[in-house]
Amino acid sequence: MSNNLTSRQQDYSQWYNDLILKGGLADYSAVRGCMVIKPYGFSLWENMRDQLDRMFKETGHQNAYFPLFIPKSFLSKEAAHVEGFAKECAVVTHYRLKNDPNGGGVIVDPEAKLEEELIVRPTSETIIWDTYKNWIQSYRDLPLLINQWANVVRWEMRTRLFLRTAEFLWQEGHTAHATREEAVEETERMLEIYATFAEQYMAMPVIRGVKTANERFAGAEDTYCIEALMQDGKALQAGTSHFLGQNFAKAFDVKFADRNNKMEYVWATSWGVSTRLIGALVMAHSDDEGLVMPPRIAPLQVVIVPIYGKDAEAGQKVNAKAQELVKELRTKGISVKFDNDDTTRPGWKFAEYELRGVPVRIALGARDLENNQAEVARRDTKEKQTVSLDGLANHIENLLEDIQQNLYNRALAYREEHITKVDSWEEFEKVLDEKGGFISAHWDGTPETEEEIKTKTKATIRCIPLNNAQEEGKCVLTGKPSTQRVLFARAY
Amino acid sequence: MSNNLTSRQQDYSQWYNDLILKGGLADYSAVRGCMVIKPYGFSLWENMRDQLDRMFKETGHQNAYFPLFIPKSFLSKEAAHVEGFAKECAVVTHYRLKNDPNGGGVIVDPEAKLEEELIVRPTSETIIWDTYKNWIQSYRDLPLLINQWANVVRWEMRTRLFLRTAEFLWQEGHTAHATREEAVEETERMLEIYATFAEQYMAMPVIRGVKTANERFAGAEDTYCIEALMQDGKALQAGTSHFLGQNFAKAFDVKFADRNNKMEYVWATSWGVSTRLIGALVMAHSDDEGLVMPPRIAPLQVVIVPIYGKDAEAGQKVNAKAQELVKELRTKGISVKFDNDDTTRPGWKFAEYELRGVPVRIALGARDLENNQAEVARRDTKEKQTVSLDGLANHIENLLEDIQQNLYNRALAYREEHITKVDSWEEFEKVLDEKGGFISAHWDGTPETEEEIKTKTKATIRCIPLNNAQEEGKCVLTGKPSTQRVLFARAY
Repeated sequence: MSNNLTSRQQDYSQWYNDLILKGGLADYSAVRGCMVIKPYGFSLWENMRDQLDRMFKETGHQNAYFPLFIPKSFLSKEAAHVEGFAKECAVVTHYRLKNDPNGGGVIVDPEAKLEEELIVRPTSETIIWDTYKNWIQSYRDLPLLINQWANVVRWEMRTRLFLRTAEFLWQEGHTAHATREEAVEETERMLEIYATFAEQYMAMPVIRGVKTANERFAGAEDTYCIEALMQDGKALQAGTSHFLGQNFAKAFDVKFADRNNKMEYVWATSWGVSTRLIGALVMAHSDDEGLVMPPRIAPLQVVIVPIYGKDAEAGQKVNAKAQELVKELRTKGISVKFDNDDTTRPGWKFAEYELRGVPVRIALGARDLENNQAEVARRDTKEKQTVSLDGLANHIENLLEDIQQNLYNRALAYREEHITKVDSWEEFEKVLDEKGGFISAHWDGTPETEEEIKTKTKATIRCIPLNNAQEEGKCVLTGKPSTQRVLFARAY
Repeated sequence: MSNNLTSRQQDYSQWYNDLILKGGLADYSAVRGCMVIKPYGFSLWENMRDQLDRMFKETGHQNAYFPLFIPKSFLSKEAAHVEGFAKECAVVTHYRLKNDPNGGGVIVDPEAKLEEELIVRPTSETIIWDTYKNWIQSYRDLPLLINQWANVVRWEMRTRLFLRTAEFLWQEGHTAHATREEAVEETERMLEIYATFAEQYMAMPVIRGVKTANERFAGAEDTYCIEALMQDGKALQAGTSHFLGQNFAKAFDVKFADRNNKMEYVWATSWGVSTRLIGALVMAHSDDEGLVMPPRIAPLQVVIVPIYGKDAEAGQKVNAKAQELVKELRTKGISVKFDNDDTTRPGWKFAEYELRGVPVRIALGARDLENNQAEVARRDTKEKQTVSLDGLANHIENLLEDIQQNLYNRALAYREEHITKVDSWEEFEKVLDEKGGFISAHWDGTPETEEEIKTKTKATIRCIPLNNAQEEGKCVLTGKPSTQRVLFARAY
């Protein structure tokens, strides 16, 4: 019952692509660097989006929608921002096509050239702060807590399905505050929401930290991040929350009258997660047989496969029982599919749902029914159990929670095993090449050393963990004094 | 307590803009023709989207996501399609900016020119059918029922908030079927879903019909539509569902093996509604005091305004009772806000929620509490009632249903009064100019006559109603024989 998947051992990168494509999450498209998110993948994204959206709304945020296009001149208004984002972007220069007078289909109409080019948003700070200028006059208008679910475009040269695509889907929160303290608090609150979501819903443990200056968002004073570890020992940045200081307020002249009627620049944050999370999810949990979905965000939590030969009466009984079970499970809010398609065989179905990572599979046969039982298989461990039909729905409900917890524990154990304290350069290189994962090492705090380590090994400082222990030490590369260890890794 | 709104009588078009801007639905942006959807407007869109999404899923559709960009050559593949959509579109020609060597900020890097220009999707038939080619091999892959929620761009010269913007949000369904019959059935099913949504949720009666050849979607064999009537007597196309025949299957070579293993072209439909519905909603129900939201899709259904002076004890009692009521209403699934902001006065709040069209306002004062009652005001009729606190939540629940029904009835009565049977050209022009609304008149069935009427009067054939009565008559313009009346109107 093989799915013809490449194994992780054979070729990790190919294994990942196989899972995305054969597991029905996404497909390549005719447009360079852009992918198609298939229904199964999109359903996963909907579950992630809906849960995050609830968490944003519970913390007082509202959704809005800002234009796809950004006037070119806007990008230049914040000096660091333009350096970070102007390089690789899609530029709209014309607004009309016309028939080719030489009969070659349609061509760009040279007369329809825009006076100022428009950039397809790579992120929306500039267009949003240009708008906030009109919305914020007084302290009464603050805080302004807005989120947007949108598509963005960054013209990446090398793309990977979900991990790095020219167009991707994301949410971007953009908030405005009266004080530095409130803005920092918001930045930290949203980081914690991302971490909670990653751990409790995606079953993916993350390290909460702060980026070094080198890795900061273009235009931020501080970039907070959550970093996850993939099964090949590479790190993946799963979400970022930026404290923007007054940079964008100054660039777009957004001031407010405080309680004493004094005009002050507004303090800002922005924060985002994207469809990249799907790539992270796949690499955090899946195995050589296919995807493994954490129950709390699985597009489908339970599948019931009926098993009977050509005995119509047996078939009817099995179907009736299955339908009953479907109803019971749905009452509990569990998503379930009864797959009684008779054009495919049970073995094919088993392999298919295994590939798709459905957390629980129930096989229900005519003989099972006689014995008042069913076969229940869990996707995470591939264990099968014979379970009584009495109270089966309750059993499944608990099992789903078990699986959720087990996936988290498994990923956490792997990550804990893969944080290695290292105190010499020799060891640094050895651990990086042979074991992978995070390396906890002293660093002298200079961008130059960070850059040199990156050049030598492709490892970057993933983050300085929040509440990091302070200890005296020597930089792993330069031997210069250091006050704390930071986390290095090769990363996606 | 005036909101300083322009009245409908004074200037209908300005009244509309005032409501959109002051009612907090949308704002202009720095990008020509693109708007910002503000939180209140976006919340309305979310409610519309969520309900439609449920209806799509209940009928077996799944969501997916396709690229924002369409290679220029794709547009040319379907002859009628390119005529309809290539004219006004945003064209991406470059993928990089660089620093201006003359120090003028950033400029387009001439070396980063795309080999083939990309069009920002005006609609996605072409990119989707290019993808379906890989997904459809056999009859087992059919029907393929996919929907996408997305932003699209059409470079309109004259724009109106929500009604006609360069970028707008919409959903586009794209389905593939084995037979013509199934595809036609799907086209009709989705039209009926749109009509049901418009009538039962937006409280907006619509006429279900079919477009004439002139007004058909570029690439369709038949375009079904729902047409609504606005308060100024102009019609508004609120949704369309297209039977595409095999046009796109042929353009993108999408064939399937049928049950007899014979290769056939696939049959297609597409259907969409957009944020334009928000414009329709505003113009269908609102009045000179502001927006009027139908309860079933209102961002906020009930607001409670406490009324007390400086008596802290009275304030506490009122607050406690209000909180209790909030809880009761939420238990019933009613969205409610308790506005106890003490920086604004009750009168200001009354005007504000009236402007925003919140269906029910409850005013709760200290004296009311003593009398075990509250003042309940309904937005649609502006009637106020004193209602006992006992069973108030039930009363509100029923009242919301009443308001929903009343809005529908009111709009229906208006529409019925504004469908006028006309049998002479003189009358046609007179009714159009003096009364407005739909004109039911005979037409000789030729595109030429339709075009001439449009040139003379700006009225178009909005649709040939479904199940239209067949009757002999003479074309209202040419006097040539006709077999049925069609509906003319000036339209948005």
